Formats: sequence, C-alpha cells, structure tokens
Amino acid sequence: MTAEQRDVLYLEDLTVGRTFTSRAYPMELERIKAFAEEFDPQPFHLDEEAAQQSFFEGLAASGWHTSAVIMRLLVESVPLAHGLIGANSEVTWPRATRPGDVLRVVSTIKENSPSSSRPDRGWVIIESVALNQDDEICQRTRSRVLAFRRESA
Amino acid sequence: MTAEQRDVLYLEDLTVGRTFTSRAYPMELERIKAFAEEFDPQPFHLDEEAAQQSFFEGLAASGWHTSAVIMRLLVESVPLAHGLIGANSEVTWPRATRPGDVLRVVSTIKENSPSSSRPDRGWVIIESVALNQDDEICQRTRSRVLAFRRESA
Repeated sequence: MTAEQRDVLYLEDLTVGRTFTSRAYPMELERIKAFAEEFDPQPFHLDEEAAQQSFFEGLAASGWHTSAVIMRLLVESVPLAHGLIGANSEVTWPRATRPGDVLRVVSTIKENSPSSSRPDRGWVIIESVALNQDDEICQRTRSRVLAFRRESA
Repeated sequence: MTAEQRDVLYLEDLTVGRTFTSRAYPMELERIKAFAEEFDPQPFHLDEEAAQQSFFEGLAASGWHTSAVIMRLLVESVPLAHGLIGANSEVTWPRATRPGDVLRVVSTIKENSPSSSRPDRGWVIIESVALNQDDEICQRTRSRVLAFRRESA
C-alpha cells in the first residue's frame, strides 16, 4: 500500500455513521458580493441597504455561494480516491449565510452501496450540514457520490 | 399598476405548465478553472492532462459552477417580484459541462401552492434543465421558490 492509498478514502472506508468535519471558512463581504455579481445579481445579495428592505432583512450570501463553499470544504475533508464526484444533490437552506459568518461542514455517511455491475466501485450517500459560528444550520446537503473500492487502486 | 409591476411575475402569473427560456451562456475555460480553483480544486476541473485520465475523460466544469450559472440565467429569465428566493433544490448532473459549451436554461412551473397561513404569498415548484449547444442535458434542477401575490404589491 502506498502512502497515497493510505491517505485517501475508498468505498470500504466510508462506513455508515462515519463523520468528517471540515476546517472553518470565513464568508467575506467582498466575496459574497463578487459571487452574486457574477451568478446571482439580486439586490439582497449585493447591496446592504436594499437587503434591509428585503425578505432577508439584511445582506445574505447566495445559496449557491454557500453550496460552492461547502464543496470546497468537502474536497478538503472527505478526500475520496479519484476525487469527489457527485451524481445528484438535495440542498436545503434553513437560514441565510451572512457576511462575517464562519462556516464549517460536518458530513455523515448515510448509505454505502457497492455496485452489482461494476465490482471496482459503489455509491455512498453523504449528508452534510454547514454550521455557522453559532452552530446554526445554514445549509443541509444530501449527495450521491461515487466511491472506488481499494482493490481497484 | 406600475410598469415595474407589469414586468415582474407574481404567484398568479406562474401557472402550471408555463415555461421560460433563458439566453445562451458560454462556459469559458478560464472561468471554469477559476471557479474550480476557489470552490472545487480537483484535477479534473483544473488541468486538461490530468482530466484525460479521470472519470470525466477530459476537463469538466464543477457541477456547482453549472448550478451557479443556472441561477444567473434564472434570475434573468424568471423575474419574480421581490426576487428569486429558494427554500430548497434538487440537482442532478446527467453529463459533464465542458469548456466551450453554451448553456441555456428552460424552466417549467410544475406546482403552484398559495399559502394557507400567509395570504400575500405562496410557493412554486420550478423544474429547470440546462441544455448545451447540442440540446444535451447537463443539469436538471427542481426548486421550491417563494412567490408573492400581485395584491401584496
């Protein structure tokens, strides 16, 4: 077994119930606005004053910015062999992510299904919650992710 | 009724079956790499050569980049009064988005549910497909979105 094989995760390592915690990631005002400018140009993501009058009652990050940050933290905290490749994802935003929030992601393996047709791989269901500095949930994510068996290496 | 009220969409306008088509959006190689650098730093999103040896058999955009682009196109093509505010979203990626792909988004209203407790608003389910220049589906999205009634204006 090489060092690389030890450091990455295979299907066999992703036992149901195993959890992974990411580092903390600060949501900076300027990045929130830059993301929104490119991908979600709505006043409540771009302008503090307009945001006060909106549904969010203050500037909020785009939900897709939060999703992208979660992906970054997953890549770092759940290092699957051959990469983190998702087939689908269910995303829920129970509360807004705000400028200055510091997010971390806690991920739990919920299902582990070896493929019947492809003996070198399988699928796992990973549920992730993104928590802010007050342990409030800003996003829940449930994703179906490809995983390879160690023997495939 | 002001001009603004005519140009934006209220719950009453979002009849089941109504569709909306966005403009075309080119997926540029440099933006694909820049997004991946920040949010999804995996070799198959960053490096052409490494991507050839990967599951994707060539450079692919992060699925979350495709999601973000879809949001941009939805903001432009489904102009809801008070903005496009989602509670949740189910995302599926049937095929990779590639550098040079030109995406457009076709969205269909699938459900329209006035709120029983809040007479000024309701929810709609919007299903969107992101198609490339060959009419292949790169992403399906089904989102629950807040909509306000015209009388609330």
